[in-house]
Amino acid sequence: MKEFREYIQYIENELAGINLDQEPQKLFDPLKYFLSLGGKRIRPMLTILGGNIFQVPKEESIHAALCIELFHNFSLVHDDIMDAAPVRRGKPTIHTKWNSSVAILSGDVLYVEAYRQLSKYTDSRFPLLLKRFNETAIEVCQGQQLDMDYESRNDVTEAEYIEMIRLKTSVLLGCALEFGAILANQSEERQARLYEFGVSLGIAFQIQDDILDLYGDPESFGKRVGGDIIANKQTLLFIHARNVTDSTHQTDFKTLLEMEAPADKIDFAKRLFQENGTLEHAKAKMSEYYQLAMENLNKLEKDSFPIEELHILAKNLMVRIN
Amino acid sequence: MKEFREYIQYIENELAGINLDQEPQKLFDPLKYFLSLGGKRIRPMLTILGGNIFQVPKEESIHAALCIELFHNFSLVHDDIMDAAPVRRGKPTIHTKWNSSVAILSGDVLYVEAYRQLSKYTDSRFPLLLKRFNETAIEVCQGQQLDMDYESRNDVTEAEYIEMIRLKTSVLLGCALEFGAILANQSEERQARLYEFGVSLGIAFQIQDDILDLYGDPESFGKRVGGDIIANKQTLLFIHARNVTDSTHQTDFKTLLEMEAPADKIDFAKRLFQENGTLEHAKAKMSEYYQLAMENLNKLEKDSFPIEELHILAKNLMVRIN
Repeated sequence: MKEFREYIQYIENELAGINLDQEPQKLFDPLKYFLSLGGKRIRPMLTILGGNIFQVPKEESIHAALCIELFHNFSLVHDDIMDAAPVRRGKPTIHTKWNSSVAILSGDVLYVEAYRQLSKYTDSRFPLLLKRFNETAIEVCQGQQLDMDYESRNDVTEAEYIEMIRLKTSVLLGCALEFGAILANQSEERQARLYEFGVSLGIAFQIQDDILDLYGDPESFGKRVGGDIIANKQTLLFIHARNVTDSTHQTDFKTLLEMEAPADKIDFAKRLFQENGTLEHAKAKMSEYYQLAMENLNKLEKDSFPIEELHILAKNLMVRIN
Repeated sequence: MKEFREYIQYIENELAGINLDQEPQKLFDPLKYFLSLGGKRIRPMLTILGGNIFQVPKEESIHAALCIELFHNFSLVHDDIMDAAPVRRGKPTIHTKWNSSVAILSGDVLYVEAYRQLSKYTDSRFPLLLKRFNETAIEVCQGQQLDMDYESRNDVTEAEYIEMIRLKTSVLLGCALEFGAILANQSEERQARLYEFGVSLGIAFQIQDDILDLYGDPESFGKRVGGDIIANKQTLLFIHARNVTDSTHQTDFKTLLEMEAPADKIDFAKRLFQENGTLEHAKAKMSEYYQLAMENLNKLEKDSFPIEELHILAKNLMVRIN
């Protein structure tokens, strides 16, 4: 995202400027390591861009932006333990490079650091920032628990799935944007517009991710194609196909679940999804949430706020749709 | 502690009143379970008693008190995973009753709930409460990491050990008390008096715990006698004996480390500690910190503040000294 290169550089510099040269090393080295792994820094950028709409200088919104990014990294560190994920951004996860205890504890420290960033706002805006951050933090934990719960269920509905991704990933995008409006002392209605834009965009993005797992260009997607299918992971596509085949092609769906050879399984899934209109359904859902996001953004444009940057960012995030 | 029965009941009622009837159950049931296991509730009581000195009603100090207790429980849940502890207060730990993922995540939620309690102070006292809470939270994590680091070292000094227990357990007692002074808008000097009282009392209490492990009455102590010795755990006694024997009785100390039969090992440790004045040394250290605690409390008494309750509590905590 070349349009935002300067913002990303600014965020990287500020992140690197957080003093983590503290003792004991075994607690702080993992944090420095994890934060240096990079990432797209979408969330802190959303806070800065949300603030930009209302002329909040980035030097003012940066602490809220860093709070969100530190919280996001905290949740990744703990999620990686729970998911037993060996790799994050091409490098060993903390619990792999050190151990689970180090990962639990250094994750906890990242979380405290998130609150420390937010605490830099000592004026009347602070209580609302903190209230919304706490509410969002609980929701992210709820989303992660639902995600784990759903692994042992085979009757997750589409509505349940969307609620899970809303909690696990999208509310934090909403909160990141909303912070921009809160910092500018904007009305609740405008806070809600930015929040809803972020939440809906997040859901659209996650559905896109589900689609790209099977239909994406492996080079630009950066993940192994069909990973979700091979793992029988319940994605939006999977849930749709199961619901449709429940009534008409039950045997086909059962066959898919039991297939083991990756290439055959992927081919079979593509055929099954095509026969049942699964890809079209997923695309339609994705568009629905993307439109919802845009409607919220456009309402701010009607009030003559400059939403151009957010519009570009949203388009950039969704550029991989065919 | 019958003198404080009403406070404890009040704290229990308020803890039980926190709304944890939320979804998903697998996230919130473990929290309800853990908080219902009881505990002495010393920390929230310290906040209430600290506030009492300056006429802060308990209905006002309760949120800060609950914040401290929730944080304490959060740290216990995560520590239990790291220590692979099967039992807490005679009941299975969360990671044993459910699993580690549930324990990590429900621990995280307890931490958010701690911040939510603190957020109830929306006036000018809040920034300082939050700043001190964040600083203390980082220190507690540092202490836990040091504790783990020291397990693989055999050259921990007494100063390092005391610094570790200060961070891991004592600063939270200090913070709990300090909150009472902050809520009463008292001077920094008086905040520091209460803080130092709590920290020193905490260190004295921890040293007492080390002593009681070997010399306590098993019935009133409630733990297996000699557990630390059997596990070759580096306590203040262990470190003192090692330092002394390093120069004079090296063979004896090496023999102790290698002994396996519990009863023999305990007898041998007692003899070794007696020969080297280890018990006397530990008692002297404990008294030193207890006196330091009292000096801080007495300075408040000189300013005509009613410190009687804290005096009784401190004496109650140390009543098990022979």
